[in-house]
Amino acid sequence: MRERLDQTIASIRPADLSLRERGQAHLDNLTKPRGSLGRLEEIALSLWLVGQGEPPRADPCRVYTVAGDHGVVAEGVSLFPQEVTRQMVLNFLSGGAGINALCRASGIGLKVVDAGSCGGRYPEHPDLIQRKIAPGTANFAHGPAMSEEQCLAALHLGLDLANDCAAEGIRAVGTGDMGIGNTTPSTALYCAYLGFSPEEVTGPGTGLDAAAVSKKAVVIRRAIEVNHTALDKGPLAVLAALGGFEIATLSGLILGCAARGIPVAVDGFISTAAYVAALRLCPTAADYCFLSHASAEPGHARICQKLGARPLFDLGMRLGEGTGAALALHLMRCACAMWNEMASFADAGVSEAET
Amino acid sequence: MRERLDQTIASIRPADLSLRERGQAHLDNLTKPRGSLGRLEEIALSLWLVGQGEPPRADPCRVYTVAGDHGVVAEGVSLFPQEVTRQMVLNFLSGGAGINALCRASGIGLKVVDAGSCGGRYPEHPDLIQRKIAPGTANFAHGPAMSEEQCLAALHLGLDLANDCAAEGIRAVGTGDMGIGNTTPSTALYCAYLGFSPEEVTGPGTGLDAAAVSKKAVVIRRAIEVNHTALDKGPLAVLAALGGFEIATLSGLILGCAARGIPVAVDGFISTAAYVAALRLCPTAADYCFLSHASAEPGHARICQKLGARPLFDLGMRLGEGTGAALALHLMRCACAMWNEMASFADAGVSEAET
Repeated sequence: MRERLDQTIASIRPADLSLRERGQAHLDNLTKPRGSLGRLEEIALSLWLVGQGEPPRADPCRVYTVAGDHGVVAEGVSLFPQEVTRQMVLNFLSGGAGINALCRASGIGLKVVDAGSCGGRYPEHPDLIQRKIAPGTANFAHGPAMSEEQCLAALHLGLDLANDCAAEGIRAVGTGDMGIGNTTPSTALYCAYLGFSPEEVTGPGTGLDAAAVSKKAVVIRRAIEVNHTALDKGPLAVLAALGGFEIATLSGLILGCAARGIPVAVDGFISTAAYVAALRLCPTAADYCFLSHASAEPGHARICQKLGARPLFDLGMRLGEGTGAALALHLMRCACAMWNEMASFADAGVSEAET
Repeated sequence: MRERLDQTIASIRPADLSLRERGQAHLDNLTKPRGSLGRLEEIALSLWLVGQGEPPRADPCRVYTVAGDHGVVAEGVSLFPQEVTRQMVLNFLSGGAGINALCRASGIGLKVVDAGSCGGRYPEHPDLIQRKIAPGTANFAHGPAMSEEQCLAALHLGLDLANDCAAEGIRAVGTGDMGIGNTTPSTALYCAYLGFSPEEVTGPGTGLDAAAVSKKAVVIRRAIEVNHTALDKGPLAVLAALGGFEIATLSGLILGCAARGIPVAVDGFISTAAYVAALRLCPTAADYCFLSHASAEPGHARICQKLGARPLFDLGMRLGEGTGAALALHLMRCACAMWNEMASFADAGVSEAET
């Protein structure tokens, strides 16, 4: 049953470091002081290193906003009622959510995926992919959120999405999530994968007060205790026990994109948890990924620090849905434009620095 | 002669704080947790407050990349030879510079302005505005860079550009500069306007080594001493003595845009100096301006701190040309899309937080 996942993982090629010198020479030959486009140069070089010597491209690009519900909301870990997940999926489909506005403003495609929200099927919609694994996870304060089979199904769904992208010529993908309560499983995953205590990384999510944050940390501590046998059984078992359908789908999407050579803009707090799970399954996937933004969820900074990763920007955002990824995809596009469209010193007849 | 400038300044309306409550209510009614789009919400609210109750808009938008040369390059303050200013103007016109790539990638218009580069006229080009005040400033290590008349002409040029924008329906403007050596006058302006010593804020510009940075600081110190009588004669005299044609033009552009109700994305180190000069002439102009990015030029962080301003992002950029402003204009566009296109909780049938 894991065969497909394992084959995908085995097919992920690391960045080709032998291309670095040629790539850096290309950048340094463009009409600008060396390094003066900062992280745009870093992005372009990363894309070049995973791109088999092809000029980096990020267009057309697409955000996947993946929805799932969480049994743990029964513990009162979110300010919003669970039905909001479904309401927001409908909002995505009618174009009224934050991610719709940012994708439209940026010329980025948007696909909405039901991986496991509560309730039945949604009305058909050309941008909706209905692949509900179950109507919400089990309450992980009492046992595993998902069975390993369910978790694997979500990972495979993510692989399928990446295959769609490859088939449709998508050149860069942004991850997005929708799931009331999903900072709770994400935080549990950070604890299990990165060794944080719940108190270190539990935050207010959509707006809990301090007392409710403490209670949320207690719930997470309990979930980790209840599921402790799973935590020794490898990254997939951890993801099944403490994750969620949208999170596991995003992990699969990240791995699938890496296998297909498609770079990924990883959104904020939830998507970074999916990213960490993906890295535990295949560290090489990191070569294809950019952490978009520093989430305003307070634990995110410590998590990024532990990963040794510096998000591209910090706009104090904490919406999820892929809103940070959409902004990062635009930066990736700008980085590609720089690489592909700027003139060299020689071609433009511009004198070089007197060094 | 200052009459036009003074009239413009007098016509700049401050942000209408009476609109704040209505604007905040609008933001909080959109389908997202309160404040969860962070600085995008802050941008949109700022645009709303200066917008007389009209929905914020940032499109169509345009970057002005203004060129000028600097007599002080005779002191060896730059790694690149002076002719690069002219070569880069030609590169802008043939579309091969960094700012061309970023503007194209972002659907932003670009106009190139010769305010005072060395050499004669350029070939005609639809995106080039040839308003050369003089072929480069005088060496301000020996006397004022510009006469007050020249400085005023540059400010008026900037006002003219803002009038063009108003006439052509441009809704947001980005500032950009091109001028070999222009971190030197910019640094001198920071010293004169903000009370820094040259050693505190002088940096490598396009790539000087430590010894050359020290020498550059000495040149700036000398310029301030040589021009000390001007420094007591008000902000215009300071700008004339220590600024440059492109810098003064950008100051005029900022003031003119503010007077016309057009928000401005201020680029990095050079543009921030133009912004500081504009603020000294009219502090209210700040209501219309966004500092785009934290420049990698080391003094910029201290300068922003002194201004009490936090740039929108930090991508380690230090190219100028308006490249940071182009990225910021895209953020302004996203902020407007959020404000104008997101559904309310009621309209989308989304439940609100249980507070």
